[in-house]
Amino acid sequence: MSASPYKQLEQEFRRLHAFRGALSLLRWDAAVMMPRGSADVRGEQLAALETEYHALLTSPRITRLLDRAQANAQGLSDWQVANLREMRRQRDHAIATPVTLISRLARATSRAEVQWLLARQQGRFEVFAPNLEEVVNLVRDKAALLGQALNLSPYDALVDEFSPGVTSADIEAVFKALSRRLPALIREVIALQDTHPPLPLNGKFPPGKQRGLAVEIMKAIGFPFERGRLDESEHPFTEGVPGDIRVTTRFDSADLFSGLLGALHETGHAMYDVGLPQEWRDQPVGRDRGMALEESQSLLLEMLVCRGRPFVRYLAPLIAKHFAVAGPEWDPENVYGHLTRVRRGLIRVDADELTYPLHVLLRYDIEKQLLSGELAVRDLPEAWNAGMEQRLGIRPQSDTDGCLQDIHWAVGSFGYFPSYALGAVIAVQLYESLRADVTDLDSQIARGEFAGLFGWLRKHVHGVGARVSVHELLRAATGKPLSAAPFVRYLESKYLEDAASSAAA
Amino acid sequence: MSASPYKQLEQEFRRLHAFRGALSLLRWDAAVMMPRGSADVRGEQLAALETEYHALLTSPRITRLLDRAQANAQGLSDWQVANLREMRRQRDHAIATPVTLISRLARATSRAEVQWLLARQQGRFEVFAPNLEEVVNLVRDKAALLGQALNLSPYDALVDEFSPGVTSADIEAVFKALSRRLPALIREVIALQDTHPPLPLNGKFPPGKQRGLAVEIMKAIGFPFERGRLDESEHPFTEGVPGDIRVTTRFDSADLFSGLLGALHETGHAMYDVGLPQEWRDQPVGRDRGMALEESQSLLLEMLVCRGRPFVRYLAPLIAKHFAVAGPEWDPENVYGHLTRVRRGLIRVDADELTYPLHVLLRYDIEKQLLSGELAVRDLPEAWNAGMEQRLGIRPQSDTDGCLQDIHWAVGSFGYFPSYALGAVIAVQLYESLRADVTDLDSQIARGEFAGLFGWLRKHVHGVGARVSVHELLRAATGKPLSAAPFVRYLESKYLEDAASSAAA
Repeated sequence: MSASPYKQLEQEFRRLHAFRGALSLLRWDAAVMMPRGSADVRGEQLAALETEYHALLTSPRITRLLDRAQANAQGLSDWQVANLREMRRQRDHAIATPVTLISRLARATSRAEVQWLLARQQGRFEVFAPNLEEVVNLVRDKAALLGQALNLSPYDALVDEFSPGVTSADIEAVFKALSRRLPALIREVIALQDTHPPLPLNGKFPPGKQRGLAVEIMKAIGFPFERGRLDESEHPFTEGVPGDIRVTTRFDSADLFSGLLGALHETGHAMYDVGLPQEWRDQPVGRDRGMALEESQSLLLEMLVCRGRPFVRYLAPLIAKHFAVAGPEWDPENVYGHLTRVRRGLIRVDADELTYPLHVLLRYDIEKQLLSGELAVRDLPEAWNAGMEQRLGIRPQSDTDGCLQDIHWAVGSFGYFPSYALGAVIAVQLYESLRADVTDLDSQIARGEFAGLFGWLRKHVHGVGARVSVHELLRAATGKPLSAAPFVRYLESKYLEDAASSAAA
Repeated sequence: MSASPYKQLEQEFRRLHAFRGALSLLRWDAAVMMPRGSADVRGEQLAALETEYHALLTSPRITRLLDRAQANAQGLSDWQVANLREMRRQRDHAIATPVTLISRLARATSRAEVQWLLARQQGRFEVFAPNLEEVVNLVRDKAALLGQALNLSPYDALVDEFSPGVTSADIEAVFKALSRRLPALIREVIALQDTHPPLPLNGKFPPGKQRGLAVEIMKAIGFPFERGRLDESEHPFTEGVPGDIRVTTRFDSADLFSGLLGALHETGHAMYDVGLPQEWRDQPVGRDRGMALEESQSLLLEMLVCRGRPFVRYLAPLIAKHFAVAGPEWDPENVYGHLTRVRRGLIRVDADELTYPLHVLLRYDIEKQLLSGELAVRDLPEAWNAGMEQRLGIRPQSDTDGCLQDIHWAVGSFGYFPSYALGAVIAVQLYESLRADVTDLDSQIARGEFAGLFGWLRKHVHGVGARVSVHELLRAATGKPLSAAPFVRYLESKYLEDAASSAAA
C-alpha cells in the first residue's frame, strides 16, 4: 500500500526543507567563513540549488499531489490541513514567477550587489543607478505576475512573500499613527534626555571579552549552543534551521553595547526559530509566520527586555565581572540611560526605538514610488535626502549615509522594510499580554531567568508556527487586532513618564 | 538556434559541479564548524542533495544528450572528446547502482559510523560488528552491480570509483614488490637509525604559533589564501573546489611536526586541485584523475619534498623565528632525523614512509576477503592482529588501535586503501623525472622557492585533469609504466645510503 497523497507531500517538503537548510548554510558560510575571492564559486552553487529548489517545488508531481490531497482532506488533523494550505501557498508563490525571470533577477541582483558596494565605497550613486534600474524593472514584472496569481495588488504581493497575510492596508494604518505622533515625541524625549545625559562610558572592550559576556547571557536565555553558534560578521544576522541555528554579531572595541545588543537581537530570532513546533520542523506549517513576526521576536528581546531596567539590573554585575570596571558610570541607571538614548541619526541600523520607525516609513514611501514609476531611479538620492530632512530633520552629506546604506533594494528585497516597523508594533502588543500573564516577569529577568518569558512566547507565538495567520495569532495571544496605539503608549511611558520620574528621583 | 547536445551537456555538468561544491561545503562545515548536536540535520541535507545529484546525473535527458553528442562527435576538440568520455563514465557509474541501494547504503553507513565511534571509545568490536556486516553486504551487492555494468571484477569496480583505470593487476604487481623488500628494509633502517638517534625536541609549541609557521610555508608554496582556508579538525583533510579550497590539520602542542606535516600533506592535495585546468574547472574532464594520483601529490609534497634535506634547510630558520628556539637539537640535520624516523607502530595515519605501505597491504588483503566472504566480519579482529604481527611484528592490545582505527569501512569505502600505497609509488616516479628536468630543484627548495616544483607538476600532472588515464599520464610524464622499483630504490637510498654516509660524516 502506497502512502497517501498528503503523506507523499510531507516527504517531498521534507526534502525541500533539507534544500533550504543547505542554502542557508551556503549563505552563512559566504558571510562568515568563505575566502573573499570565492564569491563567484558560491554564486554558482547558490544559483544551482535555488533553481533546483524552484523546479522541485513547482514540479507537476507536487501540483498533482496537492490536488489529490485537497480532494481527500477529510480525516486530516488541523495541523495537517494548515500544512496543506502552506504547501500550496509556497507552491503558488513559486509557480507565479517563471524560472527565466527568477534567473534574470538572480543575475541582475548579484551584479547590482557588487555595484552597490562599489558605489558605497566611492559615495557615488550613479555607479549603482543603472543596476538598480534593472532590478526595479524586474521586480516590477515579478510583482505584477505575483499579484495576478495571488489576486493581490503588485506591492501587496511582494509584502506577502515576506509577511504572509500582511497588506498595505495594515501597513498604512500603523504607519499613519506612527507618523502622526513620533516626530513630536522624538523632540520631547531628546529635550528631556538632554537635561540629564548619562555619564560617558569610556574604555577599550576587547572583542574576546565581549564575546564571553554575550555567550554567558545567551546561555542564560536558553540559546542552544549544542545546536547553534555565535560568530562575527560585517552585519549581524541569523541563518540556519532550528536544529542548527547560527547567529552573528559585530563587536566594536570602543562600544560595549553595539555587539552585545546585536547578538541579543539575533538571539530573539534564533529563539523563535528553535521554538517552532518540534514535530513540524521540516514542514511548511512548522516555519516562522513571516518577517513581521520574526522582527517582533528580535525586537521584543532587544528593545523591550534587554533595553529595560530589570535586565540592566542583571547586566550591570556581569559587565563588572567580565571587564573589571567600577564607578558611578557603571551603575544600572546610567547604563540604562545609554541603552535608551534617543538621537536623530542618518543610519537605520544604528537607530533607537523612537527614530527607527521613521527610517522605515521613508523607505516604504520610496519603494512604492519606485515600483509604481512615480519616482525615477535617478531621482532617488534627492527624494531620500528631502525625506530625511522632512521626517528626521537631518540631511545626509553623502549617498553612502543616505540612499546607499541598505542592501535590500540591490538584492531585490522590495516589500521587506515594513516588517521592521510592524515587528516593533507587534512586539509591544505581545509584551503587554505577556506581562499581564507572567506577573513576576520583571523580577525573573532581573535575576537572569528567562523561563517565564520564553514559556509564554513558546505557547503563544513560537509553537504556533505557521498554523494560523499573523492576525489570528495576534488576536489569540492578545485578544486584540494589530494596532499602533500600544506601541505609542509604550514609548511615551518609557521615554517620557518613567524617564521624567527617574530624573526627578 | 539551440545549443548542440555537447554544449547542453556542458551546461548540465556545470550544474552538477555546483552541486558537488555545495556537498563538499556541507561536509567541510560538519567537520570544522557545525555544532556537535546538529549531525542529524546535516545528515538529512547531505542525503537530499546526494539523492538529487544522483537523479540529475542519471536522468533520461543526460542519457539522451550523451547519445546524441556521441553521434555528433566530429568537430569536437580533444578536450571535448575526453570530457564526453568522462561524462559518460560518471553517468555509467551512477546508473549502475539503483537509487534504493544508494539510500540503503547511506542509511547503513551513517548508522555504522555512529556505532564505529562508540566501539572505538569502548574498545569493543562487537558493538560495531553487526553494522559492519550490513555495510559489507550492501557494498558486495553494489560491487556486483557495478562490475557487471562496467565489465570489471566486483573489487576492481569499487577501485575504479576511486581511481579510474587502476586494476587489481596493477595493485598486485606493486604490492608484491613492496611486500618482498619492505620488511627486511625496515629492520635494516631501524637498526641503522638506532645507532645514532636524533637529539630529543622537547618543548611546548602553542597551536597559534604552529599555525603561523604553517601559513607562512603554505604561502611560500603558493596556497591561495584568497580562495582557500586552513582550519583545524580531528583529522586533516581537504574539501572544497578549486575556486574555494579548504584544508585542515590538527595541532599537537607537544609535537611541532605532526600538525605542520598534516597541513603540508593536505596542501599537496590542494595544489593539485587548484592546478587543474582552469577552463575545464566545472567539467568532468577538469577533475582530478582519482585518488591514487591525489595521494601521489600529497605524498610528493609531504614525504619527498618536506621530509627532505633541502626543505629542512629552509625550515630550520623558520622554526627558530616562530618559536625562538636554538641549540644543536634544532640543527637541520637533527630536525631531518626526526622527520625521517622509522618506527613500527600500530596506527596507519602516524606511520612513516617505510612502514606505511605495510599498513595498506594488510587492509587490502582483508577488505578483499571480507567482500568475497572468505573472511567473516566476526573474525576480523583476529585476522587483523595476526596480519599486524606477521607484517610489522607488533600486535594491537585493543581493537581501537587495531581493526577499529580507520573510518573507511564503516562509511563503505572499500577499494580506497590501495590508492595510498599506489600514490607513494607514483610520487617517486614523478619526482625522479621532475628532478631530472628541474636541475636546480634542491637549491630552489632550500631557498623556499617552489615555482620550479609546481611549474613542472602543473604541466605534467595538475593541468592534465582527467584528459587521459593515470597510466597514460604517468607514461607521458616519466616515459615509464607504473612500477614499484623506483620507490624501493628511493627508500634504500634515502634511509640506508644517505643516512649511513651522513652518520659516518
